Amino acid sequence: MKELTRYKELIKEMKAYEYVMNVINWDSNTEAPRGSHERRAEMMAVIGAEYFKRSTSTEYVEVVEYLHQRIQKLDMTTRREIIRAKKALDKVTKIPQEEYIAYQTLLNLTQLVWEDAKHNNDYSSFKTNLAQIIEFNKKFIQYFNKADHPYNVLLDDFEDGMNMDKYDAFFDVLKKELVPFVKQILATKKEFKNPFETEKFPVDRQELFSQHLLDTLQFDRNRGLLKKSVHPFTWNTSPFDVRLTTRYQDDLAFSSIFATIHELGHATYEQQVDSKWANTLLAGGTSMGIHESQSRLYENTFGRSRAFWSYELPKLRKLFPKQLKELSLDDMVLCANKVQASLIRVEADELTYPLHIMVRYDIERMLFSNEITVEELPQKWNQLMQEYLGVTPPNDSLGVLQDVHWSAGLIGYFPTYALGSAYAAQIYYTMKQELDIEAQLSRGKFKKINLWLKKKIHQYGGSKSPEQILLDVTNEPFNPMYYVQYLKEKYTELYLK
Amino acid sequence: MKELTRYKELIKEMKAYEYVMNVINWDSNTEAPRGSHERRAEMMAVIGAEYFKRSTSTEYVEVVEYLHQRIQKLDMTTRREIIRAKKALDKVTKIPQEEYIAYQTLLNLTQLVWEDAKHNNDYSSFKTNLAQIIEFNKKFIQYFNKADHPYNVLLDDFEDGMNMDKYDAFFDVLKKELVPFVKQILATKKEFKNPFETEKFPVDRQELFSQHLLDTLQFDRNRGLLKKSVHPFTWNTSPFDVRLTTRYQDDLAFSSIFATIHELGHATYEQQVDSKWANTLLAGGTSMGIHESQSRLYENTFGRSRAFWSYELPKLRKLFPKQLKELSLDDMVLCANKVQASLIRVEADELTYPLHIMVRYDIERMLFSNEITVEELPQKWNQLMQEYLGVTPPNDSLGVLQDVHWSAGLIGYFPTYALGSAYAAQIYYTMKQELDIEAQLSRGKFKKINLWLKKKIHQYGGSKSPEQILLDVTNEPFNPMYYVQYLKEKYTELYLK
Repeated sequence: MKELTRYKELIKEMKAYEYVMNVINWDSNTEAPRGSHERRAEMMAVIGAEYFKRSTSTEYVEVVEYLHQRIQKLDMTTRREIIRAKKALDKVTKIPQEEYIAYQTLLNLTQLVWEDAKHNNDYSSFKTNLAQIIEFNKKFIQYFNKADHPYNVLLDDFEDGMNMDKYDAFFDVLKKELVPFVKQILATKKEFKNPFETEKFPVDRQELFSQHLLDTLQFDRNRGLLKKSVHPFTWNTSPFDVRLTTRYQDDLAFSSIFATIHELGHATYEQQVDSKWANTLLAGGTSMGIHESQSRLYENTFGRSRAFWSYELPKLRKLFPKQLKELSLDDMVLCANKVQASLIRVEADELTYPLHIMVRYDIERMLFSNEITVEELPQKWNQLMQEYLGVTPPNDSLGVLQDVHWSAGLIGYFPTYALGSAYAAQIYYTMKQELDIEAQLSRGKFKKINLWLKKKIHQYGGSKSPEQILLDVTNEPFNPMYYVQYLKEKYTELYLK
Repeated sequence: MKELTRYKELIKEMKAYEYVMNVINWDSNTEAPRGSHERRAEMMAVIGAEYFKRSTSTEYVEVVEYLHQRIQKLDMTTRREIIRAKKALDKVTKIPQEEYIAYQTLLNLTQLVWEDAKHNNDYSSFKTNLAQIIEFNKKFIQYFNKADHPYNVLLDDFEDGMNMDKYDAFFDVLKKELVPFVKQILATKKEFKNPFETEKFPVDRQELFSQHLLDTLQFDRNRGLLKKSVHPFTWNTSPFDVRLTTRYQDDLAFSSIFATIHELGHATYEQQVDSKWANTLLAGGTSMGIHESQSRLYENTFGRSRAFWSYELPKLRKLFPKQLKELSLDDMVLCANKVQASLIRVEADELTYPLHIMVRYDIERMLFSNEITVEELPQKWNQLMQEYLGVTPPNDSLGVLQDVHWSAGLIGYFPTYALGSAYAAQIYYTMKQELDIEAQLSRGKFKKINLWLKKKIHQYGGSKSPEQILLDVTNEPFNPMYYVQYLKEKYTELYLK
């Protein structure tokens, strides 16, 4: 089919534009001088417009329509790709180009505005940009889907098939099961030695340990690297170039360690995707939720386990002999799994983490149901934090301004974090039946673990849906009770025995 | 004139492509993982082709032709820009697109081949790629200029108006005046304390000093940064984003210090160009020669002067108290200006440096006169090194493989380095009449120096030709005798008194 050949050529061209835009973003997020921002925005507006033109060109639209109409003639993965292409096109072709460009420019500029606002604890300097981002999103949604609730459209964007009903049901289970359980855990007021809260951990040694973690977890440095940034993230353009970042503060050693392991979960996923998908829409991880399931699996299930630290604690102690001199393995595991009603999502423990997500989910839902304005956000944020976690941020930098997501136009993204943890638990219970995970971790071995995940999940990239992956791996559809079971087992063992 | 408006729009679009290609190159040269290379080459081939298409499009060709035919109606700087555009077009439109793409791909791949060859001291693994690069260049030259000697075409590419006759005359003066003078200096066998050759200087402290140099020389960090790379270079996309690199080895402290100052010369030039040229062909420094005059002025004339070190030696000593404990200012200045028949161009002293350039000039001239093949290069290299400098490289990594230039297709570039030094000397003698340079340097002040150069040279970007700049600044055309005078005065003072 010559249309299929042409489709592939057009996609490859678009991939090249995505590639350069990604590298520019990497540069912008990790080292570009601040004064270069406007010039970059000016240049990227040109490239962004060119990309937009290509991704909505008459030829591309026609070829996708042609293939979509003949979808039964295509093999299963191409079929999945064309459905993705058609879905994306239906949305994007309806946005006028000037508005798309204006939105991209706004996002570029807002990045700095947010950084400054967070630095200066000045929500008022950020709210206008945020309001504009929200208005753009509402407007855009109107162009292609007037029937559905606008927030449903966003939720589905980040996790195929998800909507408010499903998330409400999921979060209701968590609220019912977890909120009282968290209260029970907090009430124990368990005491243990915690040098990570009292000692200083020089940043250069933390960097060494993060680099060491890349080796333990068998990250392929020939196809990736670790760097610093304000907010940790994983970046990739293909399995041949996967980069992760973490951040270092001498009073927050755990922050760098667990951000590194978390991002290594994302990065390992991306490195293990079969490169045959690289020039297709099925490149990379299949969904936000599945992606987050991998980062959570590595960070929480592996990276905070007793088995893992039985191997790593002596290594960490070598770098920080004074700080960790008297720390036992028992206490180390408690340190790594300390339950606390905290303010910052990315520093939150595994157990209270979904409560942080619920704050954001509720706010996003209200914003898109016109039940709240950006003016009221700080107040609503603080109120929900009090309700779910029993704490109130002392200022907006530690509250509503803490996350990069909204400034980057990522609305509807947060709930996938909690969903990912739940996926991870379900996958974990299957993995445990097939692999002695503890034995691997206690010897600092990740080869078999990585390979199991590659074989079951990673290699497929986007060629399988999240539902299909869960079904194929675990033999049942998504079931949030595994998450509840996992958390209750783990924290009962740590805190209630 | 609506054609002029359209011309400006088209140039701005091309600037955006140049911008992204530049950022990709920066990434590739400073941190991208090695395994990402092929994928990047594949993606950049698409973007490169798109850039080529634009820079040779019928519309662009027509609009440039139109403006070129009406050049008398344009203001002087637009006139200069259109002449540049026409000249570039005349060359590039005659190269078939497939060949252009194949060449870009070759250059991309050769970068790694050269790195490996240099690392493994294996010229034979590099020579095929080099031969292909040379053949591409010869072929390309045939497409647009059959009349002139091919090397003349390349020389003119890197320095407007230069050719073999002019360079031969220039190098003849240097050979006649400098070669015997260098012998005289070397014969003194001057002895002085040189801890830079015996002590180790930890890399992290060298990094601190290089960062400190950015402050002394008043580099604007809001619009630039310093990083590491294999080969030091300056990179810029506009005055708002100017980056430089240096390299650190604990046994070569001078390498990092003077590479930093050298690149700061380039970088200061780029930061001080008026941003009004950013979206024109007159953006950036006007020529390789003038650019190099600025880096040489900063590195050698300022950075290796007694006045400069009277201010900086105490600062350097603070970082390396043990290593520099007993070093006097007199000896420091001799260390910084040690004359030596060395192997590596970028480590060569100011006085012998042009002899290194003559080796490369002779070889390039022979390659393009078909008087030598790539097979014979290592032998010819070693022979010329012996002839001009009295030394023979023990291996090709320290010989013919040392420079990145040829692997990047930069042939005809080297001679501009020597020319730049000569320009610098001529500019220096004028500057001295208008500014007490020593007084500034001995107080670590660069504000007035930077400002003088901004006013006289930098701000104009490419809107003035090299000849015009020299004439406007020094009131006479290029005169290489200033260079000879400068070197003889300086090194007589240091070595023969």
